[in-house]
Formats: sequence, C-alpha cells, structure tokens
Amino acid sequence: MLTGEPSNPGKPQTLKRTPAGAAVLRDDVTEAIRGAVFEELAVSGYGRLSIEAVARRAGVGKTAVYRRWRSKLPMVIDVVSEVASLGIFLPDTGSLQNDLRMFVHVVARVLRHPLAAQIVPDLLAEAARNPEIAETLATALGEAQRQSSAALVRKAVARGELPADTDPDLALDLIAGPLYWRLAVVRTPIGKDYLERLAASIGTALGAVPPVG
Amino acid sequence: MLTGEPSNPGKPQTLKRTPAGAAVLRDDVTEAIRGAVFEELAVSGYGRLSIEAVARRAGVGKTAVYRRWRSKLPMVIDVVSEVASLGIFLPDTGSLQNDLRMFVHVVARVLRHPLAAQIVPDLLAEAARNPEIAETLATALGEAQRQSSAALVRKAVARGELPADTDPDLALDLIAGPLYWRLAVVRTPIGKDYLERLAASIGTALGAVPPVG
Repeated sequence: MLTGEPSNPGKPQTLKRTPAGAAVLRDDVTEAIRGAVFEELAVSGYGRLSIEAVARRAGVGKTAVYRRWRSKLPMVIDVVSEVASLGIFLPDTGSLQNDLRMFVHVVARVLRHPLAAQIVPDLLAEAARNPEIAETLATALGEAQRQSSAALVRKAVARGELPADTDPDLALDLIAGPLYWRLAVVRTPIGKDYLERLAASIGTALGAVPPVG
Repeated sequence: MLTGEPSNPGKPQTLKRTPAGAAVLRDDVTEAIRGAVFEELAVSGYGRLSIEAVARRAGVGKTAVYRRWRSKLPMVIDVVSEVASLGIFLPDTGSLQNDLRMFVHVVARVLRHPLAAQIVPDLLAEAARNPEIAETLATALGEAQRQSSAALVRKAVARGELPADTDPDLALDLIAGPLYWRLAVVRTPIGKDYLERLAASIGTALGAVPPVG
C-alpha cells in the first residue's frame, strides 16, 4: 500500500505522516490510480467498475482515490479526458496527401488499440443515458482531433493545396468517421491499400488537386 | 396475459388450449415480445435487460419468451438483426448526387432515432467483449447498408457518373462513417447545410464529375 498522504480522519490507518498544513497529493500515487482506472475500465467496463477495485489495482487505500475524486463518474471523466486531450501529434510532412496518409494511419492505430477498443464503446453506451458523460466524451474524443485536422487544413491552404474556405470539421468527419465506422462499429477488416485509398479520397473530397501519379 | 400457446409443462397455467401436435407460435405474441425487447433495450440497456421484464412488458409469460429463444443473447440478436436487415430503402432518383443526398438524409434520420441512439451504443459495448454480438452487429449494421451502397454505386456507374472500379465498401464508409462519428460518437450538432456538403464531398471523393452549379 502506498502511503505518505493524509488519511481519511474517519478511518484508522496504520501509518500517518499527515503534514500540518494542506493535503499534498503525491504524483506517483495519482499516476498509479490513473493507470488502474484505465485497466479496470478495459477489464470491467464503466458499469461494473468500482472504486474499491481501482484502489486495489493501484495498491492504495480507497481514501487515496476519494481524496482526488468525489466519485466514480468524475474520476473516469478526468482520466479519460487527460489521455484523449493528448490528441494526435502530426508532424508537417510537407504535402496534404502525406499529412492525410499519416493522419488516417494514426487514427487507425488508435482505434485498434485494445484499450480504446473496449473503453470507448463502454463510455458511449453510458453517454446515451448520461449527458455529463456525453459532453465529456464529445470534448475528449472530438476537440483534440479537431485541432489536429484544423492544423492539417490550415497548412494545406497555405500551400495552395486546398481552397481557403475548406471546413476543418468536415475534414475531421471524413478522416475519423470512415475509420471509426469500419474498425469500431461494423468491425470488418480493412485491406492492405485501404488507408491509402481513403487518404486519397479524402483529399479529393476536400477539393484538393489530385496528386500526379 | 396472451395465451393460446402450449405452456411450459413445468409451470401451472390458468388457461390451456395446447394443440395436440407440434407447438404453434402465435405471430401476435412473437410481435409483442419483439416490441418489448426493443423497448427494454432502450430503457434498461443490454446488461440490465431481463427476460422477466420483457415478458411483463409484452403481457406474456416468461415461458412464451423461452419457447422462442433459449436465452437473452440469441433473443436480442434475433430482434435487432430483423430490424436492421430491413436496411435502407432508397429509390432511384436518377442522379448520383440526389441518390447520395437521399442516402445521407436517411442515415442521419436513423442515427437520430432515440431507439438507435440508445440500443446501438449498448450493443457495441457488449460487442467489445463478446465476439458473437460483435459478429451479429457487423452483419446487422453493415450488410443491409452495404447492399444499399452497392446499388447506388452500380446505378451511378451505369449512368457514367462514377468509374467502373468504384469500391462500394469505401462508398459506404464515406457515407455512414462521418454521420456515425458526428451524431453517435462526438455528438456535435450538424449545421443546416451539412448533409448537402457531405453528399457533395462524397460524390467528389468517389470520383464523380462535380455537378454544375
């Protein structure tokens, strides 16, 4: 059990090193709990996830969890948001077609990651009944990716590859949507050249001059 | 309570009109149960759905349910498959752009239907842990729509509007994906002209000659 934090005054603890002033939250404990939340989400799903199981997996007391989040919902929302907000890092490849190629490859890899493949559908099911989860997911899944697609469109417009009025939101829908539908909804395998064809189609859809040959 | 069917011999029944020969399943009972499964799925979700609640909602005994399906999973799979397999009826509008316009409008309407908005995310969450559900959903959600998009592409090729080697699966991914992503995943509202712009983009992506005007 990780210790060194102020304990819940209502509960007996074997070790107490409570500082005199305000509570200090140890970063290594927070990280251990965050990791445990992710693993519990993947194994048990949101519905069956318990604070107790998270604490056990993290090797901490339940108190350590409750000092960070008041209940399961804000805990899960915080942990998922933090990971999702890392967004998708996309270097400038110098051309729209290569930027699109890289974007679809990264999105496909994320969607095939076992954690994403289990956690996201669970939270979407909860979101259908819980507006707070729905809003967080919309932000977590959409916002970071919107910034990536906005940057991609902005660079392509600057290079003269896309019209100045290209809609970055439509661009993101065309990039993320087909892959999400294919890999996370109908879950049918994609052929070897699928990502290349998809990237080319998106470029054409957005009004790009088709690359020469 | 709907009766007139052979009862479970292990249970007492107030009314028995059991035919001498093989069991006859009354269609109106089956339809009542199918409707109840859908409503229970929407209200309770797959995880919390019980045969008992379905029977109560349908106004039948649990026996009537068990005579049709041996357990919850095959029952839900059968009911969802039947509805999904109705597919999307798309009349031939005479042009690719109008066919696409109609297709995206229909898909958007289906995705915004409250039943679809609650049931599908639930089943996708189950699918992440249950290959049998995953396979059924892939078929139910994908196959009927694949036929619709194949017909759309075939007609456009015959009209000379699309290249002969247009991939109908990629076409479906481009039609259903952005809408699913937008309406069922990030759940951000679509503007008034969104569906029009999406339909036009898909036509361009597939290699259509841009419509004049």
